[in-house]
Amino acid sequence: MLSKNTVKFIKSLHLKKYRRQEKAFLVEGAKSLQELLKSQYDIRFMVLTQSQADLLANELKSRRVEVIIATANQLEQISTFKSNDAGLAVVTLPEERSPKPASKGLTLCLDDVRDPGNLGTIIRIADWYGVREIVCSEETAEFYNPKVISATMGSFCRVGVSYTSLTEYLSEIKLPVYGAFLAGDNIYKSELPSDAVIVMGNESNGISDEVAALISHRLTIPSFGAAESLNVAIATAVICDNFRRGA
Amino acid sequence: MLSKNTVKFIKSLHLKKYRRQEKAFLVEGAKSLQELLKSQYDIRFMVLTQSQADLLANELKSRRVEVIIATANQLEQISTFKSNDAGLAVVTLPEERSPKPASKGLTLCLDDVRDPGNLGTIIRIADWYGVREIVCSEETAEFYNPKVISATMGSFCRVGVSYTSLTEYLSEIKLPVYGAFLAGDNIYKSELPSDAVIVMGNESNGISDEVAALISHRLTIPSFGAAESLNVAIATAVICDNFRRGA
Repeated sequence: MLSKNTVKFIKSLHLKKYRRQEKAFLVEGAKSLQELLKSQYDIRFMVLTQSQADLLANELKSRRVEVIIATANQLEQISTFKSNDAGLAVVTLPEERSPKPASKGLTLCLDDVRDPGNLGTIIRIADWYGVREIVCSEETAEFYNPKVISATMGSFCRVGVSYTSLTEYLSEIKLPVYGAFLAGDNIYKSELPSDAVIVMGNESNGISDEVAALISHRLTIPSFGAAESLNVAIATAVICDNFRRGA
Repeated sequence: MLSKNTVKFIKSLHLKKYRRQEKAFLVEGAKSLQELLKSQYDIRFMVLTQSQADLLANELKSRRVEVIIATANQLEQISTFKSNDAGLAVVTLPEERSPKPASKGLTLCLDDVRDPGNLGTIIRIADWYGVREIVCSEETAEFYNPKVISATMGSFCRVGVSYTSLTEYLSEIKLPVYGAFLAGDNIYKSELPSDAVIVMGNESNGISDEVAALISHRLTIPSFGAAESLNVAIATAVICDNFRRGA
């Protein structure tokens, strides 16, 4: 049974303030729940429809997860989704992660990517292209925002995301630092190393001047039409693809 | 002054049914309005904040657009945006477009791309990569959905979008037809022509069997990590990029 207090508690986690206070966040939707059950996250409890609980019966049992059964209607009251016929989980916020100094492979840095959907999509892209670390400026969208988690389609379990001052972080990096600009070198004609840091900028303003000063290579995706720019998640995918295809 | 009837009329255009009935659709936000004023679309009238009207004064005058001035607060009442401090336009629905038979360059076909945000983003990508034609299955999201228009960031003015039976359309195509699959040929190792049709599938189910039967080349974007798939707009961008980089 879903008590009034539980409903209130779950709804409070829609807001960052209460996620910090309660040290918990929400994971919603079938795909994300499936991945969550395979992850190291500490699951406090889940609210599931009966059919979803049946589907996940083995995993729930082996992880001894407390489950509350609810109807799709009840779920819609507590979910951030417009419709949710699978369920949600309340998960303990892990300790804040410190950024790992980039030394091998590709590391993504996000300079004020504000839209949660973009951040979530970028995490999914990183997971596709084998980028294990994303280092975000403090103003980048919050990793535990439900919109971020759901846009990752489960990849939030596999990519390390940390927040720090990018100028401090980048000034200590030994690897070449690439950045996406509207007027840089043609990425098709650039030699791209397999160990590098790639910086992506804010949706409206691109990479800030302070961060740009620490970038050693400015890259541009050539345009063949008339659009002024690409969405930051789209540009991230294209750049990762160009880095990987040569590797 | 924004009359009650005008408010009601604009709000009705949030729904497809009334867009068809009134033969009109909405364009919202500063960037889209700017592009709209440069386009061939028939603008019935605009509702703008005073500052936006001042900014666009020259274009409004040369196109003789009727303008109603409103506050940002009033705009939020009639806009599909959560916040809108620029304005919106009511635009006449053009005659339905017939798909052009693909003969030169790249043509995109969308097989049931249902999410309006994805369709809008794909239109923006097409505009970046110089793809002038998008041919959609009948079940693909509606071009004039306000979420589609706003996600295009103005590119709706430059890319031709039509709806038809894809099996009929593709069965008459002389060009090679490429499709995105999770198990196809490595796109990095495929020779990609400059004249081709590229088919992208539904968000959950990919390309349908009937359409797949008409595809001559199956392509896959190699994965380097553990994500199960890429979002369809992301995959479209990466595939267009691979087609263009060799051209």
